Amino acid sequence: MQLAALRHQTESEDCFAIDHSHVRVRFHSAKDDVEKVIIHYTDNYMPTQSDESIEMKKVGVGQVSDHWAATLKAPYHRIKYTFEVIGKDGSHKIVGDRGISDFNETNLNSDSSYFKLPYLHEIDMVKTPDWVKDTVWYQIFPERFANGDKSNDPAGTKAWNPEDHPGREDFYGGDLQGVLDHLDYLQKLGINGIYFCPVFKASSNHKYDTIDYLQIDPAFGDKDLFAKVVNEAHKRGIKVMLDAVFNHLGDQSMQWQDVVKNGEKSRFKDWFHISSYPVEPYRDPSKGEGEPNYETFAFEKHMPKLNTANPEVQDFLLEIATYWVKYFDIDAWRLDVANEVDHHFWKRFHDELVKIKPDFYIVGEIWHSARPWLNGDEFSGVMNYPYTLQIEDHFFSHKQNSQELVEHLTDQLMLYRDMTNQAMMDMLDSHDTARILTVANGNQDLALQALTFMFMQTGSPCIYYGTEMGMSGGNDPDCRKPMDWSKEDGPVWERVHKLIEFRRKHSETLGRGSVLLSVTKDRLIAVKRRGSEDLTALFNTTEQDVKLDADPLLGQNYESGYLKPDGFVIVKG
Amino acid sequence: MQLAALRHQTESEDCFAIDHSHVRVRFHSAKDDVEKVIIHYTDNYMPTQSDESIEMKKVGVGQVSDHWAATLKAPYHRIKYTFEVIGKDGSHKIVGDRGISDFNETNLNSDSSYFKLPYLHEIDMVKTPDWVKDTVWYQIFPERFANGDKSNDPAGTKAWNPEDHPGREDFYGGDLQGVLDHLDYLQKLGINGIYFCPVFKASSNHKYDTIDYLQIDPAFGDKDLFAKVVNEAHKRGIKVMLDAVFNHLGDQSMQWQDVVKNGEKSRFKDWFHISSYPVEPYRDPSKGEGEPNYETFAFEKHMPKLNTANPEVQDFLLEIATYWVKYFDIDAWRLDVANEVDHHFWKRFHDELVKIKPDFYIVGEIWHSARPWLNGDEFSGVMNYPYTLQIEDHFFSHKQNSQELVEHLTDQLMLYRDMTNQAMMDMLDSHDTARILTVANGNQDLALQALTFMFMQTGSPCIYYGTEMGMSGGNDPDCRKPMDWSKEDGPVWERVHKLIEFRRKHSETLGRGSVLLSVTKDRLIAVKRRGSEDLTALFNTTEQDVKLDADPLLGQNYESGYLKPDGFVIVKG
Repeated sequence: MQLAALRHQTESEDCFAIDHSHVRVRFHSAKDDVEKVIIHYTDNYMPTQSDESIEMKKVGVGQVSDHWAATLKAPYHRIKYTFEVIGKDGSHKIVGDRGISDFNETNLNSDSSYFKLPYLHEIDMVKTPDWVKDTVWYQIFPERFANGDKSNDPAGTKAWNPEDHPGREDFYGGDLQGVLDHLDYLQKLGINGIYFCPVFKASSNHKYDTIDYLQIDPAFGDKDLFAKVVNEAHKRGIKVMLDAVFNHLGDQSMQWQDVVKNGEKSRFKDWFHISSYPVEPYRDPSKGEGEPNYETFAFEKHMPKLNTANPEVQDFLLEIATYWVKYFDIDAWRLDVANEVDHHFWKRFHDELVKIKPDFYIVGEIWHSARPWLNGDEFSGVMNYPYTLQIEDHFFSHKQNSQELVEHLTDQLMLYRDMTNQAMMDMLDSHDTARILTVANGNQDLALQALTFMFMQTGSPCIYYGTEMGMSGGNDPDCRKPMDWSKEDGPVWERVHKLIEFRRKHSETLGRGSVLLSVTKDRLIAVKRRGSEDLTALFNTTEQDVKLDADPLLGQNYESGYLKPDGFVIVKG
Repeated sequence: MQLAALRHQTESEDCFAIDHSHVRVRFHSAKDDVEKVIIHYTDNYMPTQSDESIEMKKVGVGQVSDHWAATLKAPYHRIKYTFEVIGKDGSHKIVGDRGISDFNETNLNSDSSYFKLPYLHEIDMVKTPDWVKDTVWYQIFPERFANGDKSNDPAGTKAWNPEDHPGREDFYGGDLQGVLDHLDYLQKLGINGIYFCPVFKASSNHKYDTIDYLQIDPAFGDKDLFAKVVNEAHKRGIKVMLDAVFNHLGDQSMQWQDVVKNGEKSRFKDWFHISSYPVEPYRDPSKGEGEPNYETFAFEKHMPKLNTANPEVQDFLLEIATYWVKYFDIDAWRLDVANEVDHHFWKRFHDELVKIKPDFYIVGEIWHSARPWLNGDEFSGVMNYPYTLQIEDHFFSHKQNSQELVEHLTDQLMLYRDMTNQAMMDMLDSHDTARILTVANGNQDLALQALTFMFMQTGSPCIYYGTEMGMSGGNDPDCRKPMDWSKEDGPVWERVHKLIEFRRKHSETLGRGSVLLSVTKDRLIAVKRRGSEDLTALFNTTEQDVKLDADPLLGQNYESGYLKPDGFVIVKG
């Protein structure tokens, strides 16, 4: 048995309270190396001899590991437990808090063999907003969704032509009135969450170069209109998420300009990371220009990094963060470059927001694995790129085969607690990437197959505006074409609509149930979801028709008993 | 190569900032399975092609794993890195953020192969008080250390006879005046930290049954006297640590008695965990008495558990915690049953205390591995029982051989960041255990050999009052005999004094340097410390004399070129 591969970490994603009296425990071993894992457990103050034991279930097979899990009852809100592991080679071990020992009565009864969860405190439990598990998000890039008010169009606004290839600096006149006018549309489409790209005052069309976080961009509307959008959305059961950039300011901001002008005398000098005065024109070390005397986001000269350890900066940002919740009742923040801001700040941020709205949703933009932010006191979830990029690596670019996909996704699910996996935001495209239809080389079936695969995962799915219209577009700015309203109710629209409806109808299981990923002998990818009902989705990502006897609840390219390439079925069971 | 054994977790004890521009990275593989680990790294916003690489050093061999480490430079306070691993079987892999891949240029240059440390925030770094690394603690059980004031002796105080076997309820008259009178003594002995068992008003001799946390027990003295003890200790360079019991109250406390009397109407009802009213006599489920209707510590009917999620309780406890720091200038808290109080509370506790004293030392009583409390925002360290119990399992009870000891200790060192290992409190005995001399069956050489082994570890060593007098004693209450002052300056005293002196003189290396544990071919245990100087300690725990050519800085049972059983030498190099 590969002893160094036997892994468990207590009080982590490997062991977490699911309520005041139940604990979910995971264990990991080398792939196909272990016959059985039995967990022995009892109350911390009961003698180890009073142990109960249950066999753990193999809940997934990863790239190089098998993953095991069990749920334990802790009637007095505390528990000690140890693992009995039987290898396929017949070896028989105990894996406990002080390492590995031979399986025998003495070792099994030794208190030091046991991991301890000292007490399951309600206040320490990782909680994620329940409503997110029922939510299908719709991402709106406000300048391109709908122009509801021509009177606020910027000078030089171009005609609303969905066939255009927008330039970096183009304006098309989209605004909040356009969103308000289409809330009924969004309700009809079936989504129940809007994720807005920035709406605050800024000069660009994308508004990431915030000038004033406390003002709606005049080309989009004003606060009264924004309040109306939120209220009307809420009336339709639609939640509202805004986008916040707290890592850096623009170099045109009042604060940075004050530092540029007044140097060490500026009252904002401690808002940034400056090593000497006066601040000099940025020298980019990645271009061999030498060393800069202030820090920026990446090596972007126009984005001086904020010093979020400064309580003044914290207060400034928290005022913004809470303002839009307290006075406009937004439901969620999406946090730009969330990983580069300090944990200390995010903990304050989390505390302040859940104080106002206990089920507030906080989702960080993090492109790598994100354990450190997902322990219940910072973010509810992250934009789950490491997960969805794996999906693209199989469905679109074929960089990995179906077996590899399934293994990698399974490993990813083991990085976080179940309630965290359920609060992840999953997306295949956005304003920052090419559109899925384009990545799928114009193959609409393939695009929708991949989207359906994503909708079948745990996590809250998000579609990018226009996906339902079958819009295409290359990398930014081409992915930001004006919405093609002519395709409403068309065949693609219908399919996306049905998919959204399906996800919402079955969200008890799809949003909260267990996931088991595998590859069938016919090389179909199977996603088994178990919850209030049993659902299985099968995806044909091969180039052959596969014979399949199914009665699909939802499907594509399934004809006369064959699941064709780019096809899928979702069935009961 | 055992792929499932290749382990690394970013932003954890496997990867932590040691200053604003340097990161310590650890990696783990199956024992004797890997030839070489090379770490590739660069700035997060530099192309992966610009990688630098260095070979990691094997820093220890554990029970089933090899441990590797390296220090990386991050000039722009952020870093991405990935591991190139070459197996003894010739296999060649990359271990990165998205799993394991074959080693080749494409994979090595793929950004997703890299772990990311997004930014090294000063405010998030784990810091432990520097002075602790230079500290040798001395634990005082106040009722038994010295009677300096006969006027406050409790009724029925027994004669001060160090040969007595104290009963559970006996009083001997020890008090704070006795401590004050002996501060010069403690300074002469060489210690520079006093860890006091509880001194607050309580009825027992051990004072763990606190009646009033804001009053000094009258049999020990008063606040003026306590202030004097702290001031005089500080004048002598001695730090002061007090003992706090925040998990539960005694059932005679005003608050619990109010609940007993007034039930649901008590203003303290939310201070505890009560499931129904009136509170009924405690039913102990471990004795089959049925289910209790309130929670206690363990199944101790006299110790109702505090609800530390209640802000009123938090404020009550934090007021106590800060009171003794603000007004009496204590330097450290030792926290009783620290693991059963919620993390949320300890984070507030940590914040409040370091706000008053940035280098305040917080040490938790936790008997199992303690990762969740040691991430920089709760405790500085814990009483390192899982470490010191291993020492006893070899030196005293022979439950494990020297090779097993060395492997287990090495694995333990990998559980925490270096700065945390340095702030652990190590002790071989206390008021809760038999004295080491008794555990060593009266073999003073063996007791001092084990003590010296502990002093050579990273972590802050603590001796129990009377160890320097060669006192013996079985389990509590026998380990609490009145101090034997007749042995001052005796032969045992001299040896303990020299050991303390040695630890303090070499604390730059012993308190902060690296540790490498191994077993020599002659079965001596070697502890190599590397810091401002190179020191090696060798311990003979066999039953044979071992030929050894040494020029010891400190030693025992080393004669005519032979290290005898129960002997040790500490040498340069």
